[in-house]
Amino acid sequence: MLGGSIGMRLRRDALAKEVVGFGRDRKKLARAIELGAIDRGEESLLAAAKNSDLVIACTPVQQIPAAIVEAASVAKSIALFTDVGSTKSSIVESLGSMPFGKQFVGSHPIAGSDKSGVEHASPDLFERRLTILTPTVESNPTAVQTIERFWKEMGAKTQTMLPDEHDHAMALTSHLPHVVAAMLSMGTPTHLLELTGTGWNDTTRIAAGNPQLWRQILEENHGPVLRAMQNFATISREWIAAMEAKDFERVEQLLIAGKEIRDSVGNRHSSG
Amino acid sequence: MLGGSIGMRLRRDALAKEVVGFGRDRKKLARAIELGAIDRGEESLLAAAKNSDLVIACTPVQQIPAAIVEAASVAKSIALFTDVGSTKSSIVESLGSMPFGKQFVGSHPIAGSDKSGVEHASPDLFERRLTILTPTVESNPTAVQTIERFWKEMGAKTQTMLPDEHDHAMALTSHLPHVVAAMLSMGTPTHLLELTGTGWNDTTRIAAGNPQLWRQILEENHGPVLRAMQNFATISREWIAAMEAKDFERVEQLLIAGKEIRDSVGNRHSSG
Repeated sequence: MLGGSIGMRLRRDALAKEVVGFGRDRKKLARAIELGAIDRGEESLLAAAKNSDLVIACTPVQQIPAAIVEAASVAKSIALFTDVGSTKSSIVESLGSMPFGKQFVGSHPIAGSDKSGVEHASPDLFERRLTILTPTVESNPTAVQTIERFWKEMGAKTQTMLPDEHDHAMALTSHLPHVVAAMLSMGTPTHLLELTGTGWNDTTRIAAGNPQLWRQILEENHGPVLRAMQNFATISREWIAAMEAKDFERVEQLLIAGKEIRDSVGNRHSSG
Repeated sequence: MLGGSIGMRLRRDALAKEVVGFGRDRKKLARAIELGAIDRGEESLLAAAKNSDLVIACTPVQQIPAAIVEAASVAKSIALFTDVGSTKSSIVESLGSMPFGKQFVGSHPIAGSDKSGVEHASPDLFERRLTILTPTVESNPTAVQTIERFWKEMGAKTQTMLPDEHDHAMALTSHLPHVVAAMLSMGTPTHLLELTGTGWNDTTRIAAGNPQLWRQILEENHGPVLRAMQNFATISREWIAAMEAKDFERVEQLLIAGKEIRDSVGNRHSSG
């Protein structure tokens, strides 16, 4: 979905001479061509990356460093490298010193979904959404500017953060919600599912995400996610204590605290 | 929203000779007339319920029993009474023996939302959604059939449950998700809110609901909700244990358990 969306935007706005997709599945590559996401598909990463100017890794997070290093061996000497991974510290650390002085600048477009695959791609996926860039002190400023311009061409707003700062923030704003949605879903007895309404549906929607991808995210961002979960457990104990004490004034205060933060965000990126 | 939606449907399908709305706010009543939700508005419950055939209480749950009893004193002798409250045991118990042998049959249309007010009403709100009826062994079967027919005219599917059974089910499918959404929202540092995406947004959406109404729901359904929260805390400890042990095989199993239940429901009632 992310790679396909980038390809569609690049092609629609004539931003690249050629968009090459790499994938192991010939049928998916054919479908990506059909849908206008890529000009050419390659089942070999080396063939796909050969002589490229820009390589964007859209694989599961744990495969990103190896894929970038492999692509760097055949890309142009001036080529730049980025990714769309939703964790950054370990990826950026792995790619701190690229072979032949090549430049990797980590990116994370916050345009997630429980969906995947080129069928769900759209050239407007990144439109007005935030993409976080995570350069380090060692990043070449020109490379950072170019990657930033790339995301602006995708329609995104950009923001720069340190990789650690990014991962701490995402543990709270993205990874914890995913875990909580999964907890809520797994805790619902199946014979009651026919009684669920929009509330349960909204609250558990992201639990439909790919478990293998999410396992990798939770593994890569283990420390910050665990702390976010422990913090959430503390809040949960506060709620249970208020309910056990039948302190409904306190319950109302807790509900108000939740509403105030929710209301300050609104429905600006609702999914469905 | 619920009362207005009922009124719109009744009027659109010419199901009632007259739809009378009761409310304390003259402006809201005028707006309800403007939007086609009611024929006439009354600021006095006695004036509104006088000579009515059917009374539907759409107030916050804790006000439902008193409102029904008051309305029963002036409604027709053959009048029927129902409600749209999202808890049922204490309401049904309070109204177990109505004055003058009048009949109350508890209802709960599962068509909730974080929205309220006639501006969000729609004659199709109940269409293909489930409404649960909670008659007791003492309910008059003809009254139950009539209330069931009423909801079918609203477009709803109906199901009958015991009040306790209903409240236990709702604790898990509706009240716990609300509490969890509030916990997640209140636990997000405000300086990180600009980094939230669709996942956080979906998962916390219902935390925007009215805290006073939800306090009443949690109070009315205290026991089942507390047990649901304790059960959720157990699941949370299971997750934290897996993360602390860095047992990512187990983490993946937990993610799969959440996904399987979520996938079995799909997006049949997505909100936005």
